[in-house]
Amino acid sequence: MLSEKLRKIYDMAGAEALFLESDFLRRYLTGFYSTDGYVLVTEDACTLVVDPRYSEAAKKKLKNSRISVVEGGYQEAMSLLKPYHTLGIPYPFTSVAALRKYEEEGHFTVDCMPALKTSMLIKEGWELERIQKACEIAESAFNELLGDISEGMTESDVAALLEYYMRAYGASGTSFETICAFGSNASMPHYETGTRELKFGDPVLIDFGCKYEGYCSDITRTFLFGDDKRHEEFKKLHAVVLLAHEMAKERILAGMTGKEADAIARNYLKSKGLGEEFTHSLGHGVGLRIHEAPYLSPRSEEILEEGMVFSIEPGVYIPGEMGIRIEDTVQMKGGRVQSFMGTTSRKALIIL
Amino acid sequence: MLSEKLRKIYDMAGAEALFLESDFLRRYLTGFYSTDGYVLVTEDACTLVVDPRYSEAAKKKLKNSRISVVEGGYQEAMSLLKPYHTLGIPYPFTSVAALRKYEEEGHFTVDCMPALKTSMLIKEGWELERIQKACEIAESAFNELLGDISEGMTESDVAALLEYYMRAYGASGTSFETICAFGSNASMPHYETGTRELKFGDPVLIDFGCKYEGYCSDITRTFLFGDDKRHEEFKKLHAVVLLAHEMAKERILAGMTGKEADAIARNYLKSKGLGEEFTHSLGHGVGLRIHEAPYLSPRSEEILEEGMVFSIEPGVYIPGEMGIRIEDTVQMKGGRVQSFMGTTSRKALIIL
Repeated sequence: MLSEKLRKIYDMAGAEALFLESDFLRRYLTGFYSTDGYVLVTEDACTLVVDPRYSEAAKKKLKNSRISVVEGGYQEAMSLLKPYHTLGIPYPFTSVAALRKYEEEGHFTVDCMPALKTSMLIKEGWELERIQKACEIAESAFNELLGDISEGMTESDVAALLEYYMRAYGASGTSFETICAFGSNASMPHYETGTRELKFGDPVLIDFGCKYEGYCSDITRTFLFGDDKRHEEFKKLHAVVLLAHEMAKERILAGMTGKEADAIARNYLKSKGLGEEFTHSLGHGVGLRIHEAPYLSPRSEEILEEGMVFSIEPGVYIPGEMGIRIEDTVQMKGGRVQSFMGTTSRKALIIL
Repeated sequence: MLSEKLRKIYDMAGAEALFLESDFLRRYLTGFYSTDGYVLVTEDACTLVVDPRYSEAAKKKLKNSRISVVEGGYQEAMSLLKPYHTLGIPYPFTSVAALRKYEEEGHFTVDCMPALKTSMLIKEGWELERIQKACEIAESAFNELLGDISEGMTESDVAALLEYYMRAYGASGTSFETICAFGSNASMPHYETGTRELKFGDPVLIDFGCKYEGYCSDITRTFLFGDDKRHEEFKKLHAVVLLAHEMAKERILAGMTGKEADAIARNYLKSKGLGEEFTHSLGHGVGLRIHEAPYLSPRSEEILEEGMVFSIEPGVYIPGEMGIRIEDTVQMKGGRVQSFMGTTSRKALIIL
């Protein structure tokens, strides 16, 4: 028998069987993590096919669930699929190579991603708990890091230490490659962390996050490492970005589109003459993947609803000079935005 | 004008234009890393399309290359593609959703992965250097870790510390989720690192690796944390697995198939009554991805050639009791296997 969640997804997909190869979707449907494997969902059963590397662990973990575990690989999965003509596969997460194989086996395919997406957009309690935990770990690690930053450390040193603290606080890893940019390097929004050494008076931008039981957190802080009085412009811009950030949090309401949400911060930054310098969108959904629906961008028609989780991250970039971004991961709760972040400062705090 | 590498790939693919969306293939072709973007290869030009987050960095990095950078997103990439009817796309790394879009735009597709794979299988000097560095970092980190392991640390603590050292030695991150298993947890070959605390006398299995400029390392060591004299069976099995490992390194020669290579270790383990306990294949290619061609498995007909890089990792697992795996990343050089690993012990070293 299927769980209620699987039943809804199956019914909406409109296929005889759903067949999933991608790791994060396997995790979403079964709660079990493996680098390889297959999930098969039919009218009345959900089966996880994993190879001998994983079968002992999978059987142990799913013992009391409604999911049965079969030891095997691609051949075993295909033979289980044989009776079903129409397969629901997630088009964005199925390769053309896999599609060609299903077609050779005589299957017809439809896209089951809309059904999965609908389900995944609204986070359940157990998912929110994992995201909350991933956010708490990220913040605790950041606060611990602040006490350790010192002159002469490289961007990589700082990123490494931050990642260590996240691991030590219980993260399974990072949710994306940590961005740590000193000084003018921060003007590249997705800068690749390098070997520049920290100097007194440098602005520091750190965009980071971790995974906890598969779920992600995403957070950015920009601050000054020592104030050498040359920072009037930085402080002014930081205050503007912070206001855009707080304004978005305050005014985004359930029922708005992603476009309307994005416009709150964008219009404010435009009014300050910084429309061109806000070069990306306001936010993106966060869940098992670091970037997922809903998108808060100038083109997004997605409706923001109760239970959705996304980032709010306005930023302003002056090429070759400076970059400032302030980001929280938040949820839509009781019709309003509620941040998962609570223990780190969003201000241009100056550390010495 | 195309570089020699791109020329070969283009000619072999047999399409009017190659079009690539996946991040590691973009990195392989352009040397530039971005989470999003598109690469277009035609008869006489290679173009990287990246959004404003990356364009400043891409233009800087590719200034003196034969690759031109265009700022834009999917629409810009599609409009550059318009003149070309037949697109070469990598089927295993292109989603069905992307395929459907290309088809809607009137394109016909062929699989260019065979051409890419042929090129990527044989590592160039600059690639071997990066893998070498990724291996050195992993080994240095492991050696540093050995001095810090103490009773009461959890599997996660040990993994976190190891990952910190890899970062501190210059890795950009891990090449896969570190597996750290104490005691009988090691009997699950792909165990998910947990909270078990280290006790005197525990066997420890750590399977880990890092990335350096995109390229991966992969290494496993299994050792005893203190010898409480109950470990005769462990020591016996460890010696057998180590011999299987050394035998494979000694006897694998250029020109063999993956199957023949796998059989060297497998037949030896069978002769010791451990054929059933060696539940996975001997090895896999290592490069920009942690698992890629060539595969050293009982079914692999791939020929092992000069310049290929792969893992050698025999293992023996007694469910609920113990697991032992010894793995190096190696290259085929001068007709024989040469390990990238040189500073860590493969023995069942006992630390206290």
